[in-house]
Amino acid sequence: MSQSPLRLGIAGLGTVGVGVVRIVRKHAKLLEARAGRPIEIAAVSARSRDKDRGVDIAHYAWEDDPVAIARRDDVDVVVELMGGSDGPAKATVETALANGKHVVTANKALLAHHGQDLAEAAEASGAVLRFEAAVAGGIPVVKALTEGLAGNEITRVMGVMNGTCNYILTRMEATHQGYNALFEEAHKLGYLEADPQLDVGGIDAGHKLSLLAAIAFGTRVDFDAVELEGIEQIELRDIEEAAEMGYRIKLLGVAQMTGRGLEQRMSPCLLPAASPLGALEGGTNMVVIEGDMVEQIVLRGPGAGEGPTASAVMGDVIDLARGFRVATFGQPAATLAKAKPARAVVPAPYYIRMELQDKPGAMAKVAAMLGDAGVSIDRMRQHGHKEPTAPVIFVTHKCARSQVDEALERLATNPVVASAPVAIRIEEV
Amino acid sequence: MSQSPLRLGIAGLGTVGVGVVRIVRKHAKLLEARAGRPIEIAAVSARSRDKDRGVDIAHYAWEDDPVAIARRDDVDVVVELMGGSDGPAKATVETALANGKHVVTANKALLAHHGQDLAEAAEASGAVLRFEAAVAGGIPVVKALTEGLAGNEITRVMGVMNGTCNYILTRMEATHQGYNALFEEAHKLGYLEADPQLDVGGIDAGHKLSLLAAIAFGTRVDFDAVELEGIEQIELRDIEEAAEMGYRIKLLGVAQMTGRGLEQRMSPCLLPAASPLGALEGGTNMVVIEGDMVEQIVLRGPGAGEGPTASAVMGDVIDLARGFRVATFGQPAATLAKAKPARAVVPAPYYIRMELQDKPGAMAKVAAMLGDAGVSIDRMRQHGHKEPTAPVIFVTHKCARSQVDEALERLATNPVVASAPVAIRIEEV
Repeated sequence: MSQSPLRLGIAGLGTVGVGVVRIVRKHAKLLEARAGRPIEIAAVSARSRDKDRGVDIAHYAWEDDPVAIARRDDVDVVVELMGGSDGPAKATVETALANGKHVVTANKALLAHHGQDLAEAAEASGAVLRFEAAVAGGIPVVKALTEGLAGNEITRVMGVMNGTCNYILTRMEATHQGYNALFEEAHKLGYLEADPQLDVGGIDAGHKLSLLAAIAFGTRVDFDAVELEGIEQIELRDIEEAAEMGYRIKLLGVAQMTGRGLEQRMSPCLLPAASPLGALEGGTNMVVIEGDMVEQIVLRGPGAGEGPTASAVMGDVIDLARGFRVATFGQPAATLAKAKPARAVVPAPYYIRMELQDKPGAMAKVAAMLGDAGVSIDRMRQHGHKEPTAPVIFVTHKCARSQVDEALERLATNPVVASAPVAIRIEEV
Repeated sequence: MSQSPLRLGIAGLGTVGVGVVRIVRKHAKLLEARAGRPIEIAAVSARSRDKDRGVDIAHYAWEDDPVAIARRDDVDVVVELMGGSDGPAKATVETALANGKHVVTANKALLAHHGQDLAEAAEASGAVLRFEAAVAGGIPVVKALTEGLAGNEITRVMGVMNGTCNYILTRMEATHQGYNALFEEAHKLGYLEADPQLDVGGIDAGHKLSLLAAIAFGTRVDFDAVELEGIEQIELRDIEEAAEMGYRIKLLGVAQMTGRGLEQRMSPCLLPAASPLGALEGGTNMVVIEGDMVEQIVLRGPGAGEGPTASAVMGDVIDLARGFRVATFGQPAATLAKAKPARAVVPAPYYIRMELQDKPGAMAKVAAMLGDAGVSIDRMRQHGHKEPTAPVIFVTHKCARSQVDEALERLATNPVVASAPVAIRIEEV
């Protein structure tokens, strides 16, 4: 085995970049034993050279421009930890791949938007592009799906993959506070991205889902086809109603190949409280992979943070040091199919909440509208109230999302319904 | 990428072997897309050629002697699925490695007893020896530990890795039947190995633990150093007492490097019922990996069966087809350290059950004996009884296993104690 060191160029020294520097220094001997050769840092780049990061970077070559990292002769692997779907991150990765340098990145947005092009660029130059840290933090899920479970036809991938959303939802239940209060709390704790929509709008988790779907189904990454629904509409009463029925609400991603095409959705769902996904607390992530041979594999771990994300980056780096080469999405980019997107075709029961005018016949009208849309009612609940409107909860029998949408449209425009109704899918995982 | 097929020689056509044949046939195109080359079966060997296995093996070359598979020029990878720590399995694997052929095996006993020698033999001839299917069925845990989490100093590995034991224990709780009745049930269902001690004695799970420990801590496999305790002593009342205190009893494996050496134990433990390990049902396996960077990763999936185990075998096969080479235990065999074995040094509370003579002063004597051994009592329970002896349960404060053993010795020889006392560790996972 070659004893020449594998030389890293790290672009981005935020939390994760610092974590990578720490591992390379702290575990130098361990890494060399496992990788069969030393792993070294040759060069780094970040916005500010002088910022105190708690790690000494004086011994590494410095580049003001991250793209310059990707051009250095003494760099074998570019570790891209800047983030952002375009701009310097994209330029750096493109330059690295064009120069035949391997890339390890934690950048889900970049891959969700440009995964196909980058995978093709990697193959064109014989470089390897890996992204374990981009999905579900420290959980080695990209590896499990691309390699460990590669003998399976994957039938479904599900995941709770945004720790901030899960934090907000579990704290709403624990503290009986509303969404806005917990959004503020998460903001103060620094849990939200600069653009909070990335988190609470489901975009970040949707990016991750689109990457897993590409590997699972051998399809081109198609983030635009992910049905996205955030958690902003979830009210405390939804969480409490769900709890009374034995459910918890999670921002759940589901990708599955159906007869009508590839279904990818990231949306709040009611999950059985006792199920592994339903029981998940706080910032922890969970991914469920179902295959025709393996049945079901569940992976759980920290979804973010310096140590866990750096651990995932180093898993990829060690693979490269060991000489392992696998196509970005598990098979040659040219063989990835363009999947037809299918909107939630798998039927499910739905939880529907609305405010109803407290007038005789209102309930009959609602029931008729639901029935006209093909939605049949399994259970309904109406609590005591003081206002002239009454909160009403329906649980439907299994139906298609399109039927629910049709019902919601009818309901929204009828005067007996006081506010826009909200529907949340019930997933019996 | 080379388009030459990877040619398998399968030694052993039991449940798992048939599963492998099924995957290779059913997923030929999928496997070729993912592996970058066709995966074919060149030859097979089993006890009987004519047995109806539900798959057609007529197109594959047949060998009566599995060792002959390992000598065939048209075999690149020997897939050893016969089982047994010695005999034909060992001879086949040794011959394959000596001939520079890669080996994929599901044989935990073989590796637990001869792992070091086989790893050295593989390296000597440049062959690769992989064993994902030997540990925790379909869960890609060997891969996660060897590759995905290789950037971590692993601090602890825990697992419930014998589905039969977990089946018996969860069924005892669900049906309120005793150990013997459920042992019989498991036997009738075909869940038990030919030698049931392998299951209920903790040996099979101990084999698996010793393999994970070698990877985790960079040490030579040392199955003989695993403290083994089976589940035969667990009574229904233990399960019920545990349940009342919020615990469930599981056959838990723990491996951790302590200041005094490598602790490896496989024994029944009380685990919080709501914890992921405690909540595990039936034949499902779970492995928990803790590392200094990644914190905690939990992996859950089916621990046995045709599909899941064959899935694990194929994960290894696809790695080989992709050209991935990693040392058997994650680093060169010569660099694996001989760890000093340490007997359960990490202190824990213990559950102690005994039958006490219903005589004045008996309890005081027991309390004194526990105290003399350095074991202090947190809680005790004594239920109503009709016999002249009374069942008594103690929960101790944290103490060392050696102190508990000393207490048990004193108790066992004292006339106030009517039967040999049983101690079960409480693990707050």
